[in-house]
Amino acid sequence: MIPGPVPVHPRVYRAMSRVLYGHRTKEYQTTYKETVALLQRLLHTEQDVLIFAGSGTAAMEAATANAIEPGEKVLNVVNGKFSERWSELTTAFGAQSLVQEFAYGQAAEPDAIRESLASDQSIRAVTICHNETSTGVLNPAKEIGQIVRDYDRLFIVDGITSVGGDYVYPDKWNFDMLVTGSQKCLGVPPGLGMIWVGSRAWKKIETRKQRNPTYYLDLLKAKKRYDGFGDSPFTSAVSLMYGLRESLIIMFEEGYEQRIERHHRLGRITRAGYLGMGLDLLADPAHYSNTVTAVKYPSGITDKEFRAQVRNLGILIAGGQGPVKGKIWRTNHMNVCTERDVLATIAIIEIVLKRLGYEVPIGSGVLAAQEQLLKEKF
Amino acid sequence: MIPGPVPVHPRVYRAMSRVLYGHRTKEYQTTYKETVALLQRLLHTEQDVLIFAGSGTAAMEAATANAIEPGEKVLNVVNGKFSERWSELTTAFGAQSLVQEFAYGQAAEPDAIRESLASDQSIRAVTICHNETSTGVLNPAKEIGQIVRDYDRLFIVDGITSVGGDYVYPDKWNFDMLVTGSQKCLGVPPGLGMIWVGSRAWKKIETRKQRNPTYYLDLLKAKKRYDGFGDSPFTSAVSLMYGLRESLIIMFEEGYEQRIERHHRLGRITRAGYLGMGLDLLADPAHYSNTVTAVKYPSGITDKEFRAQVRNLGILIAGGQGPVKGKIWRTNHMNVCTERDVLATIAIIEIVLKRLGYEVPIGSGVLAAQEQLLKEKF
Repeated sequence: MIPGPVPVHPRVYRAMSRVLYGHRTKEYQTTYKETVALLQRLLHTEQDVLIFAGSGTAAMEAATANAIEPGEKVLNVVNGKFSERWSELTTAFGAQSLVQEFAYGQAAEPDAIRESLASDQSIRAVTICHNETSTGVLNPAKEIGQIVRDYDRLFIVDGITSVGGDYVYPDKWNFDMLVTGSQKCLGVPPGLGMIWVGSRAWKKIETRKQRNPTYYLDLLKAKKRYDGFGDSPFTSAVSLMYGLRESLIIMFEEGYEQRIERHHRLGRITRAGYLGMGLDLLADPAHYSNTVTAVKYPSGITDKEFRAQVRNLGILIAGGQGPVKGKIWRTNHMNVCTERDVLATIAIIEIVLKRLGYEVPIGSGVLAAQEQLLKEKF
Repeated sequence: MIPGPVPVHPRVYRAMSRVLYGHRTKEYQTTYKETVALLQRLLHTEQDVLIFAGSGTAAMEAATANAIEPGEKVLNVVNGKFSERWSELTTAFGAQSLVQEFAYGQAAEPDAIRESLASDQSIRAVTICHNETSTGVLNPAKEIGQIVRDYDRLFIVDGITSVGGDYVYPDKWNFDMLVTGSQKCLGVPPGLGMIWVGSRAWKKIETRKQRNPTYYLDLLKAKKRYDGFGDSPFTSAVSLMYGLRESLIIMFEEGYEQRIERHHRLGRITRAGYLGMGLDLLADPAHYSNTVTAVKYPSGITDKEFRAQVRNLGILIAGGQGPVKGKIWRTNHMNVCTERDVLATIAIIEIVLKRLGYEVPIGSGVLAAQEQLLKEKF
């Protein structure tokens, strides 16, 4: 139940086990193009989606190294561990990182971002993490996108734990670049980083005055190769691509709306269960993530002991990172996760909390989760 | 029979299909460290081996971006498509590429490299491709390593199609960095790039005056994370790592010497078969690769038609690249490849050549290959 790598559908494993086509064959190029088309369908877009052998961080680096010029000022909106990565990348690639910070658990505030853009005309780009995996917060990407577009700046979004699990409309929401990875809501083992690049980002890349050195993650090279041959400039992670294609096919068998609504439902049930035990969630209730939930430890419960006991009962959950390390735990509701999984998780966690001395009438968490499920359409 | 991605052992597929451990769990870190230890055993080394989610080119970029300073002069020994990549990377990362060229099919000449180093004291590093996949040439890495060490320069080696298929001793042969990838002689699907870093390379990295921006491929960060936790700074390609570990276990079950000698034997049988058909090989006979063989087209045979017909009979082979595009074909003898595979390949190729009008007494290639096999120890 950790927020990635998530459990993988058996059909995805099977697809990954097929004999490898040569990565420069027509057959593989056909598979590759089908996979890109499925990703485009998932993102409601006809713009470019490029895929790298690498983690989601590689795709984040591709965005930074290609679209941000050395010396440029970037507004890095930071409200968790993963949004912080944009700031590290901005600095690593010689640009100026202006950090706009919000507390762990709070969402990025569009008005504050508007003020920053209004007060400093030299900001060239804004970065956010759409769904902050480290805090269980879903940032208002659409609202921020409108503001960034109003100021004609580049809007670069990390969608690593939103794409495939929540609504994401890069075109409609005025994104310029959107990155994601294989091992979260897309339901594939880690090793693929993907990037959607909008026309304004291409224009920025094509009119760069200065540029960082790029080779492996050179977006223009990747686009040229894909447009010409339907594959990637360097050897593609063939087996993971078979897995991604299969996982996307499974997604559309379930249906886009159905899939996203299932994630929302699982989020509501999970939160109902935790709240029913009298626990506090980390995230601002107006901005709950639908793919991961972060829960504050009640006093007297230690992270290490708690997670070890939960694990002994067969469920792997995640701790906190950065300033909330030791103060929260996190459980995912992504990809093949079902009501069965979240109910079992609530039940086990309730038992471990009880055993460790937390005063909770046994069954209250599961009951609250069940009551929520009873209200849901399914 | 293309030189990578190569066929994968069923046990490797099975290993890749196991439930994913969380990439930050003790269990996964144990698996990770075991995998690194197996790679170290394969390379007869106790020095660092770092693994990236990415292709072999990502590992080449890690070497260049970390160990070469902008403006430095690098002697890029080029005798094929893959050695050329070092020159492209050198240039991409702001260093000065001095290309020492040898014809496609010729090996790099140690004496000529010595002369270059003697005549230009400002050269800081030398790159080679150990086994040139594009030409079927095995470069004399040991001899070149001695020369580069004599001049106290950094020696950076691409071992993508030699590691696991031929003898490679990075310590004894005076390498400073050695890169490889998962999908060739290591027998795993593509998606992992590996780099061995010797103590002199670390010293160079630690004493850089100028540096290129790196983040995803930052070697110091990767070493720090591995030394501290036994895993990688960014999400590891978990399923491919399971596959790599299994493939390395299979290698040592066969035995190191046995495995390398099998590759040598398959190389001899393959070459005997082609030569028995009266064909010419591209490579200098003193420097045949033991993992891939390149054959010149006899006049009147066109690449496209030939390879299409071979493929119709169930065997995928590779064409030429760069200046030898359309002039050669290539077949691999890597990883799980056996005598059965190379004999079948020779037999099929003989039939297609005959059908396309090449004057060859039918059976002569297979016969020559069989005669070679009869002489071999097995």
